[in-house]
Amino acid sequence: MRVYLSGEIHTDWREQIVAGAEGLGIAFDAPVTDHAASDDCGVAILGAEPDKFWHDRKGALVNSIRTRNGIEGADVVVVRFGDKYKQWNAAFDAGYAAAMGKPLIILQPPEHDHALKEVDAAALAVARAPGQVVDILRYVLEGTLPG
Amino acid sequence: MRVYLSGEIHTDWREQIVAGAEGLGIAFDAPVTDHAASDDCGVAILGAEPDKFWHDRKGALVNSIRTRNGIEGADVVVVRFGDKYKQWNAAFDAGYAAAMGKPLIILQPPEHDHALKEVDAAALAVARAPGQVVDILRYVLEGTLPG
Amino acid sequence: MRVYLSGEIHTDWREQIVAGAEGLGIAFDAPVTDHAASDDCGVAILGAEPDKFWHDRKGALVNSIRTRNGIEGADVVVVRFGDKYKQWNAAFDAGYAAAMGKPLIILQPPEHDHALKEVDAAALAVARAPGQVVDILRYVLEGTLPG
Amino acid sequence: MRVYLSGEIHTDWREQIVAGAEGLGIAFDAPVTDHAASDDCGVAILGAEPDKFWHDRKGALVNSIRTRNGIEGADVVVVRFGDKYKQWNAAFDAGYAAAMGKPLIILQPPEHDHALKEVDAAALAVARAPGQVVDILRYVLEGTLPG
Amino acid sequence: MRVYLSGEIHTDWREQIVAGAEGLGIAFDAPVTDHAASDDCGVAILGAEPDKFWHDRKGALVNSIRTRNGIEGADVVVVRFGDKYKQWNAAFDAGYAAAMGKPLIILQPPEHDHALKEVDAAALAVARAPGQVVDILRYVLEGTLPG
Amino acid sequence: MRVYLSGEIHTDWREQIVAGAEGLGIAFDAPVTDHAASDDCGVAILGAEPDKFWHDRKGALVNSIRTRNGIEGADVVVVRFGDKYKQWNAAFDAGYAAAMGKPLIILQPPEHDHALKEVDAAALAVARAPGQVVDILRYVLEGTLPG
Amino acid sequence: MRVYLSGEIHTDWREQIVAGAEGLGIAFDAPVTDHAASDDCGVAILGAEPDKFWHDRKGALVNSIRTRNGIEGADVVVVRFGDKYKQWNAAFDAGYAAAMGKPLIILQPPEHDHALKEVDAAALAVARAPGQVVDILRYVLEGTLPG
Amino acid sequence: MRVYLSGEIHTDWREQIVAGAEGLGIAFDAPVTDHAASDDCGVAILGAEPDKFWHDRKGALVNSIRTRNGIEGADVVVVRFGDKYKQWNAAFDAGYAAAMGKPLIILQPPEHDHALKEVDAAALAVARAPGQVVDILRYVLEGTLPG
Repeated sequence: MRVYLSGEIHTDWREQIVAGAEGLGIAFDAPVTDHAASDDCGVAILGAEPDKFWHDRKGALVNSIRTRNGIEGADVVVVRFGDKYKQWNAAFDAGYAAAMGKPLIILQPPEHDHALKEVDAAALAVARAPGQVVDILRYVLEGTLPG
Repeated sequence: MRVYLSGEIHTDWREQIVAGAEGLGIAFDAPVTDHAASDDCGVAILGAEPDKFWHDRKGALVNSIRTRNGIEGADVVVVRFGDKYKQWNAAFDAGYAAAMGKPLIILQPPEHDHALKEVDAAALAVARAPGQVVDILRYVLEGTLPG
Repeated sequence: MRVYLSGEIHTDWREQIVAGAEGLGIAFDAPVTDHAASDDCGVAILGAEPDKFWHDRKGALVNSIRTRNGIEGADVVVVRFGDKYKQWNAAFDAGYAAAMGKPLIILQPPEHDHALKEVDAAALAVARAPGQVVDILRYVLEGTLPG
Repeated sequence: MRVYLSGEIHTDWREQIVAGAEGLGIAFDAPVTDHAASDDCGVAILGAEPDKFWHDRKGALVNSIRTRNGIEGADVVVVRFGDKYKQWNAAFDAGYAAAMGKPLIILQPPEHDHALKEVDAAALAVARAPGQVVDILRYVLEGTLPG
Repeated sequence: MRVYLSGEIHTDWREQIVAGAEGLGIAFDAPVTDHAASDDCGVAILGAEPDKFWHDRKGALVNSIRTRNGIEGADVVVVRFGDKYKQWNAAFDAGYAAAMGKPLIILQPPEHDHALKEVDAAALAVARAPGQVVDILRYVLEGTLPG
Repeated sequence: MRVYLSGEIHTDWREQIVAGAEGLGIAFDAPVTDHAASDDCGVAILGAEPDKFWHDRKGALVNSIRTRNGIEGADVVVVRFGDKYKQWNAAFDAGYAAAMGKPLIILQPPEHDHALKEVDAAALAVARAPGQVVDILRYVLEGTLPG
Repeated sequence: MRVYLSGEIHTDWREQIVAGAEGLGIAFDAPVTDHAASDDCGVAILGAEPDKFWHDRKGALVNSIRTRNGIEGADVVVVRFGDKYKQWNAAFDAGYAAAMGKPLIILQPPEHDHALKEVDAAALAVARAPGQVVDILRYVLEGTLPG
Repeated sequence: MRVYLSGEIHTDWREQIVAGAEGLGIAFDAPVTDHAASDDCGVAILGAEPDKFWHDRKGALVNSIRTRNGIEGADVVVVRFGDKYKQWNAAFDAGYAAAMGKPLIILQPPEHDHALKEVDAAALAVARAPGQVVDILRYVLEGTLPG
């Protein structure tokens, strides 16, 4: 099973899921989570841009090679919304995955429930903690429940 | 041509586009923009829910009948990001439209450029004002430029 | 908007929906609801079969010309589960519609909730009465709520 | 070859097929067949729900991660209808598989023939015993007939 | 409803179906049935070919503009096998329609049953006379049986 | 029938086809053929770019709203290669149309035969003059040959 | 690379291709070529049918599990037309493969050229001998030509 | 990851990319780059053609078995435009890949920027040197930037 971990890059939720899922035989994919590399990959490889808009465009297009392939190749897509920032790319990924019929798990704190209601409604599970995502993946693969 | 107008519901940008596009023969679709109706449609029709999470879920699912059909039937999808709120449903719609290969126009103020870079990178145009969207639609249909 | 009304054929729920939706400009489709004609269409047109299994097969195949086209051409699929019978064709239609990404509304009495939980989970609304289906369709088309 | 075994979970038909198909190199998938775990997986992982409807919904959505992936990844889908219960999820899976163009084998007792005629008409074989399913899989893979 | 009438071009079966279906509001499509025009359209329009193989290729490619569009736009595809000739293009059209999920009706005399068993198995009806095809179309559209 | 006329914009081949096809009931689409408008549409509507690369990018993206929709909505795509220029957008459109399974007619002078052999091999006809395209369209629609 | 070998089952053309392609790393699939088993598989496994039509239907449906999967999983589909029989299933497979966009190689004697012109026009190569098919496969994989 | 390297065959850009990407675990595919073999494969295998047009057609069709499969199986498609020749097959491949939603990288010198603007606008990166393509692939796979 391939699982794509989209969204927030400032906490260790991916590491928690990967560690918790050890032994389940899952291949995890994710966007590049090095913030600086992700922001600058376009100009670092393809040449500088004086205009920030095109600087960002070049990087976003290069990153989309990875994110699109990651979502399209996934059996399950997990999208994490954290406490901060706009996180529109996370919601974009969720919409992209939903339109492709990918099983979607949203990982988000309760304070975002109302703002995420359309995103959550397209998901098969809304989790509050990385451990719940692991529990779902284990259940889906092995049929066993926690505890 | 069918154009779906997704996103922000607190300013009159849709009215401006519809008025500006008069005579072009475009059929416009949009989500329900009555905020209260949109929030409560699920429980108003299908029965109250004591838990706000399911109250929201019911409404979001009913609304998605309209939004999914609107996007899927569209020749062009315009997504507006305004000044306020999380607007994750707008970004979700953009991702959904992108995955379906729909031509996408993003309408947003420059201060969101960096946060929207992944969304913008999937779009065929990033406009700053409703009139630019009208100009694009007129150009696409009639080949004429403003001025 | 095209709406396909699948499922139970022994009560007047279709008539109630069609009457309630008058003026909304909806084109309704449905399977052949004449039970005898539906059961015998295969042999009546293509010749008798001594074996009931093939008698049924011939009819089911002919009926599927109508049901598949009805579902595939629909913008919304409503599936009604009534009080009696196995109604496996209704559940089959629901699964067929779900796999095609059609917005699905299930109309069923509460006593079937547990048995229909997988079907309901694929739906965008679970209604208890035909009038609720009408209310949803009106809301989806016109954005107005009852009352 | 991947074969998904959908439907009834109260008899050992899956075990019979898996045992009979030993040596054919088939990878079998199936829903979680632990009835209690299947019913409660949603609340056990994601938190209790006072309302049985949402209790069921949470579980059905989590289970659908496994069932959808199982059907979509299958080369052949076998759906078993037993003697008891509504089994609407089995018929739903059959419809889902049919819409995806998956080769479908229905395993059911003759007393259900009339009620299952639409489901059977979408299938490539209607078997009465698990051994017949094994015989079909062996024939499809190796071209040899029983006896 | 659009119906594509593929296959044999030496008898008046198309005319019988079109006449019988009068008043049902069906739009019928068909290949060019003028045998000489169909054979020579490529070279007549695009220039002579000394080699019969390429003469035929040019014509077959031009004809396929019509036949592919006809099948792809059809709600029902009828394929007629007559008494004579190889009729491989008819079987090719049947396979093409089947792969696209088009409801397929085969019209053929009983003496071809064994040779057409794979084609028939992909069809929703096997008719012996044009009138039966009309009866199916009327039943599918209006729910009424003959007699 | 919708026909998209892609490619060369410096001769009157489109006008010849449209005039020749009068009375056939064909709806023709095409890119914007005003060269200056086509080159500058992006910056004229969305704001100037100092860098020619992004000036071109903005315009090409806006134009692609029209060209993608034109190709995707077409029943037949005609691509004209003229005597001059690189015409890579014409070949790109041909590849795009081929991948979507659109019937493709190439209109090109014989001196390009070798260079266009891969493009021609994906086409259903290679014409030398606009009148031949008209003859094909008339034959496809009405079954009649010239002369 | 997976290659599906469809069509004639009375000569050793498949063996010739498999032997000639040794060392190329190709996985070959084919229908069941034991004529008696292929004709009787349905009734042998699922029970006798007094009516030859349904005897054939049962077998054809069971065989289609293998043939459909074989074609859908193939990178190249080779269809052989021999000297004898109607061979409509071969033409059906060719149409099925063509509609799925599978690269198609037809292997047939010149006397069938005219009758197969529509089938050949959908193919990427028309070969006369099994060795030519091997040469094509080797060229496609390794870029080397015979001699 | 599979990467298809389309386009120019007269310089060693493919070798540079393959060498630079050593250790990344990428499987590279490409058209046959032996110009003479590529031009003559059709007639060398399937028999001579006196008319150069059909000589070319035969070869182009055989080559398309490899190129179509290569593009369809790729996770990333790189298309190189060199200094010379029409290179319409390169632009055709780019259009084909774009329509299939494949991530596209264009490798071309700046002097072609204007002529390639429509092709570039469909790409996720426009590189000037093979090393930049390697840098992109490494970044996409490993998240590391050069330098």
